[in-house]
Amino acid sequence: MSSTAGQVIKCRAAVSWEAGKPLVIEEVEVAPPQAGEVRLKILYTSLCHTDVYFWEAKGQTPLFPRIFGHEAGGIVESVGEGVTHLKPGDHALPVFTGECGECPHCKSEESNMCDLLRINTDRGVMISDNQSRFSIKGKPIYHFVGTSTFSEYTVLHAGCVAKINPAAPLDKVCILSCGICTGFGATVNVAKPKPGSSVAIFGLGAVGLAAAEGARVSGASRIIGVDLVSSRFEGAKKFGVNEFVNPKDHDKPVQEVIAEMTNGGVDRAVECTGSIQAMISAFECVHDGWGVAVLVGVPNKDDAFKTHPVNFLNERTLKGTFYGNYKPRTDLPNVVEMYMRGELELEKFITHTVSFSEINKAFDYMLKGESIRCIIRMEE
Amino acid sequence: MSSTAGQVIKCRAAVSWEAGKPLVIEEVEVAPPQAGEVRLKILYTSLCHTDVYFWEAKGQTPLFPRIFGHEAGGIVESVGEGVTHLKPGDHALPVFTGECGECPHCKSEESNMCDLLRINTDRGVMISDNQSRFSIKGKPIYHFVGTSTFSEYTVLHAGCVAKINPAAPLDKVCILSCGICTGFGATVNVAKPKPGSSVAIFGLGAVGLAAAEGARVSGASRIIGVDLVSSRFEGAKKFGVNEFVNPKDHDKPVQEVIAEMTNGGVDRAVECTGSIQAMISAFECVHDGWGVAVLVGVPNKDDAFKTHPVNFLNERTLKGTFYGNYKPRTDLPNVVEMYMRGELELEKFITHTVSFSEINKAFDYMLKGESIRCIIRMEE
Ligand SMILES: NC(=O)c1ccc[n+]([C@@H]2O[C@H](COP(=O)([O-])OP(=O)(O)OC[C@H]3O[C@@H](n4cnc5c(N)ncnc54)[C@H](O)[C@@H]3O)[C@@H](O)[C@H]2O)c1
Ligand SMILES: NC(=O)c1ccc[n+]([C@@H]2O[C@H](COP(=O)([O-])OP(=O)(O)OC[C@H]3O[C@@H](n4cnc5c(N)ncnc54)[C@H](O)[C@@H]3O)[C@@H](O)[C@H]2O)c1
Ligand SMILES: [Zn+2]
Ligand SMILES: [Zn+2]
Ligand SMILES: [Zn+2]
Ligand SMILES: [Zn+2]
Repeated sequence: MSSTAGQVIKCRAAVSWEAGKPLVIEEVEVAPPQAGEVRLKILYTSLCHTDVYFWEAKGQTPLFPRIFGHEAGGIVESVGEGVTHLKPGDHALPVFTGECGECPHCKSEESNMCDLLRINTDRGVMISDNQSRFSIKGKPIYHFVGTSTFSEYTVLHAGCVAKINPAAPLDKVCILSCGICTGFGATVNVAKPKPGSSVAIFGLGAVGLAAAEGARVSGASRIIGVDLVSSRFEGAKKFGVNEFVNPKDHDKPVQEVIAEMTNGGVDRAVECTGSIQAMISAFECVHDGWGVAVLVGVPNKDDAFKTHPVNFLNERTLKGTFYGNYKPRTDLPNVVEMYMRGELELEKFITHTVSFSEINKAFDYMLKGESIRCIIRMEE
Repeated sequence: MSSTAGQVIKCRAAVSWEAGKPLVIEEVEVAPPQAGEVRLKILYTSLCHTDVYFWEAKGQTPLFPRIFGHEAGGIVESVGEGVTHLKPGDHALPVFTGECGECPHCKSEESNMCDLLRINTDRGVMISDNQSRFSIKGKPIYHFVGTSTFSEYTVLHAGCVAKINPAAPLDKVCILSCGICTGFGATVNVAKPKPGSSVAIFGLGAVGLAAAEGARVSGASRIIGVDLVSSRFEGAKKFGVNEFVNPKDHDKPVQEVIAEMTNGGVDRAVECTGSIQAMISAFECVHDGWGVAVLVGVPNKDDAFKTHPVNFLNERTLKGTFYGNYKPRTDLPNVVEMYMRGELELEKFITHTVSFSEINKAFDYMLKGESIRCIIRMEE
């Protein structure tokens, strides 16, 4: 038992008081975990686009003051009643989508969309009592996607915490909490390219690069990167991308360009853009007979996916995935082991590191498109 | 060697002289098979909707005079040069889509869409020399989908002929040439429902009933039949369909009705209608996390499949299939064996039998919606 167990912890957190305004490092009170909850000491956290979207709050319901952050690595400080799979001192990754272990999704081999702990970006409180565990002088501060890792201590539902190998460096594996697993899993768990096959990756952001890494690890021989921004191509080479197409360089639709390059279409396509046009192109550029396309990007509310049904009848498959189809508690420890065995490379995703007090720099790097992942060290 | 090998054979064929007009039994000359071809003596043939569509020639390029027919069973009379997998006397099923064995599709484990012998409804001649093998007093009569089984003898590309167990009754297994395999394979090869699962079948024509038979054989416990014509429901019970929904009986979209019946959606859906609305409903009625929908029906040229991309992101899968993903030469012999072992029931599909001279009655039964399959006996 740590000496802080059962106590309110005072610590530093980066609080977002207003949409789009720099975060402010504040002293916050973090309540002890209730039944089924875990309090985690965060050692490293990284910034993902989703934090930025909800911080900008352009399309979403604004919920402020809020503590953002959902990619992180930490150590269990204390656990609430009934938590059996975690104990103080365990190394763990928080995940924005959980695994209750009881619902039809958790019991299905195929799904990771837990009925209870599926991502909910509108909720700013804990599930058990609709209260926040964060406060500043008694005034509650909202949570974000059940993780709120921009704090030295945070409280999560135990189903959102994956216990991992304590030998794994938390400053590297913390990026598995979201974007990297999302792209990597989309390829290795869902698209499943065979060795020697061709794979098109639409969008060469962090998620797309992780999807490319999945294609590389799977032994794909042609990895075709598609992006509207050609400056992304050079950096993508490190991730196994060996051919490049910028749709802007062609008069005909990019799916036709790719079909011509590949004698009828690629074996697999993974869409990591959020653009509906890219989703349609990714589907239509796979080969008839066996092609599989996987959607990862989050579309706009009124987007419509539209194609001729004969594209399906000609034996193409279209799937979508959420968090790379990984069940966080069950599967994440194994992804960490893949990294430990040197199969999955994480270092190349990490382009920047800052200390916690410089967290707003991480936002700048991402907004300027300079970073893939920026690690934020909680201990200065 | 049969005595007719290498000779022109004169025999009876049902010739379609004009779109929509009754077929006429004529004496035709059937040329010997050329290199890579097979001449088959047809013993039984059955009528499929596709024959009727092209005979009506409402939406298609008319090609007359023509000999229709593509579901049949027969015996090899003679083979052309280089044909090694068939010999005179072999029992065989002709198939409208072939298997050359050499192209990327034939070499892929997943595809049956042979580059060379894929269905071509516009071609009325043999591939090797662009000539017809049928004539009446020297005037050529067009072939149909490479099979033209409404003739006592017909010539096919050897890649379109599946050799089967000679003990199998040709008057039953002949219906495996098209519709039954299409629906059955869509379920067992593509949708792959697990024992105890729920399956929705859209369209309860011959193809849909075969899809239901596939769900029954797979051990599905809930088989929900969806059709606009409620009179189809009673007959569908024999095929394992145990719940029924007529979209016309509900104010809300049928996908919502099915989601409510099944606590969020069916595990699998198979669309066998050709209606674009049914295709969309079939996709949207499968459960998130693991649901798979399979399209089988042939849509109109200008139909667009349209859905919100989040339906994919929530881990639904959409696929299409052609001829139930069966490779005709490789797989059809095994489907015949399933029937021989009593696993797949064919008798219940056969609602009528007529002699060859009464072939126009088979058209009447189908046009009136009275028949599932009508067998046509070539020997009176
Ligand atoms: N499904 C999930 O579980 C999950 C999890 C995390 C992120 N995401 C989504 O994945 C997507 C990618 O995330 P990211 O952080 O890598 O984003 P990013 O913005 O860093 O990268 C997206 C890339 O796509 C490119 N792009 C945009 N439109 C394009 C088009 N029409 N054709 C080709 N390229 C195009 C952009 O130029 C950019 O390089 C986002 O939509 C994000 O919301 C999904
Ligand atoms: N993909 C292939 O390889 C292949 C092979 C053969 C046939 N087909 C196609 O399969 C489809 C079915 O063939 P069939 O011979 O069984 O046809 P059919 O006309 O006998 O049966 C179709 C059934 O669908 C029903 N239906 C139509 N619209 C509907 C809707 N919106 N909702 C619910 N039910 C609806 C009709 O009432 C009818 O009972 C056709 O489109 C045919 O062209 C495909
Ligand atoms: Zn669950
Ligand atoms: Zn993220
Ligand atoms: Zn072939
Ligand atoms: Zn047919």
